[in-house]
Amino acid sequence: MKEKVKRFDVLKINGKNTVRAEDTVVREFALTLFLNSYEIITLMCTPSSLEYLAAGYLFSEGLIKEKDHIKDITIDIKKGLARVMTWKDGLVKSGIYPKRLLAPKADRITSLPNGINIEKKAPITTKITIKKDQIYSLMDKFDLSPQIFMSTGGTHSTALCDNKNFLLFSEDIGRHNAIDKIFGECILRDIQTDDRIIMTSGRVSSQTLNKVSKTNIPFVISKSAPTDLGIEISKHLGITLIGFVRGRRMNIYTHDWRVIR
Amino acid sequence: MKEKVKRFDVLKINGKNTVRAEDTVVREFALTLFLNSYEIITLMCTPSSLEYLAAGYLFSEGLIKEKDHIKDITIDIKKGLARVMTWKDGLVKSGIYPKRLLAPKADRITSLPNGINIEKKAPITTKITIKKDQIYSLMDKFDLSPQIFMSTGGTHSTALCDNKNFLLFSEDIGRHNAIDKIFGECILRDIQTDDRIIMTSGRVSSQTLNKVSKTNIPFVISKSAPTDLGIEISKHLGITLIGFVRGRRMNIYTHDWRVIR
Repeated sequence: MKEKVKRFDVLKINGKNTVRAEDTVVREFALTLFLNSYEIITLMCTPSSLEYLAAGYLFSEGLIKEKDHIKDITIDIKKGLARVMTWKDGLVKSGIYPKRLLAPKADRITSLPNGINIEKKAPITTKITIKKDQIYSLMDKFDLSPQIFMSTGGTHSTALCDNKNFLLFSEDIGRHNAIDKIFGECILRDIQTDDRIIMTSGRVSSQTLNKVSKTNIPFVISKSAPTDLGIEISKHLGITLIGFVRGRRMNIYTHDWRVIR
Repeated sequence: MKEKVKRFDVLKINGKNTVRAEDTVVREFALTLFLNSYEIITLMCTPSSLEYLAAGYLFSEGLIKEKDHIKDITIDIKKGLARVMTWKDGLVKSGIYPKRLLAPKADRITSLPNGINIEKKAPITTKITIKKDQIYSLMDKFDLSPQIFMSTGGTHSTALCDNKNFLLFSEDIGRHNAIDKIFGECILRDIQTDDRIIMTSGRVSSQTLNKVSKTNIPFVISKSAPTDLGIEISKHLGITLIGFVRGRRMNIYTHDWRVIR
């Protein structure tokens, strides 16, 4: 596996002090993803968990739906290639390759990327709740978890949690990649996502929700801001969206009944 | 023009206090970009300066090179469409639509997105310098400038500066869009970029440098982290790359002779 960080000579200025020192910088890796014989995209990513990234990206984009669709995944780290082979080609052909990410019509969101029609998707109805102190505890742990970020300041993180524990954790230079790595791991390792929580360091946009909408996850919790579409899609899909979890503060944007105060 | 923010009812928790209050959230707008008859991409963006975004995106991607290539730009805000018409179709046809963003071979960066070969591109040789205190002053001003961020926490900013003043400033939910808006404005308003500075709130990656490499800008200054490729491309292109400008600290990654201590 490639190194995830690289060291550079840097001139560091701090007030009146100037020192030349080695600094640790996050690596950026180009992974070109093939689905069967189709070149799908080149992702600029952190070179770790690349099988999960490949599977998760295809899942998030609606190009594969479950593990059983996948025949084989090969990663060629030298060439920067990921190839996912499926048993059938049909789903792929119909899906390739929608450029339109979202089709808002007269301010109504009628479809998400890749033809997911959120008005047709049944909202999540789970009655699961979480205590606000559990959210703070999870975020405290989240803040201490990212190893590459600690040394480089250059990554986003995502975690899959239950109310008390982290089940999976990922880091990537791209906030979308970090989410895809989690969902890819869920698929390939048969990890259930029902009633789970997605925590993210990044902002919550329509693209974030598009990924989450492929699962039945009822909680999206972020340190950062949501967009209007992130809120509107969460509202429609029955997802509890929480942003700006910092210290002992948070904003609950949708379905706040799931948070016990 | 569309509103750039939207108000939502939010449950705000702060310690033991819980209040339902209106909150201002950044808007996310889908702009589908056509170049002549070709659909290029749908950008999720902040609905402002859309002509600049359209022109800047095409410039950054190498699909237009100068203002004179452009015959007409129309924005249909209701349908979320931007159409850029050029006098000739040739450049467009040859450019559409490279999916491969970067082709690293044996760890050497030989080409940037869209066929820009950085080994062939002549490095920037300008002898211009900047004082470290000028950098701090510019960043202090940069921190106070983003209006949408101040109310929403959901945008990135970019500025074009000389050593003392801001010449242009942009905000967008996407850090790449914010840069494209600046370069689009430069093209459409005939604003020179030689010896100027790009300041960005976002991380500096290969994609950032790909955009900047279309100009002769010798300074890229960021509040955030660079990636290894961001550093390596800057080094090769003669660009002074400065990151983590916070308080009275900064890291100078490349060509530090341009900063006078």
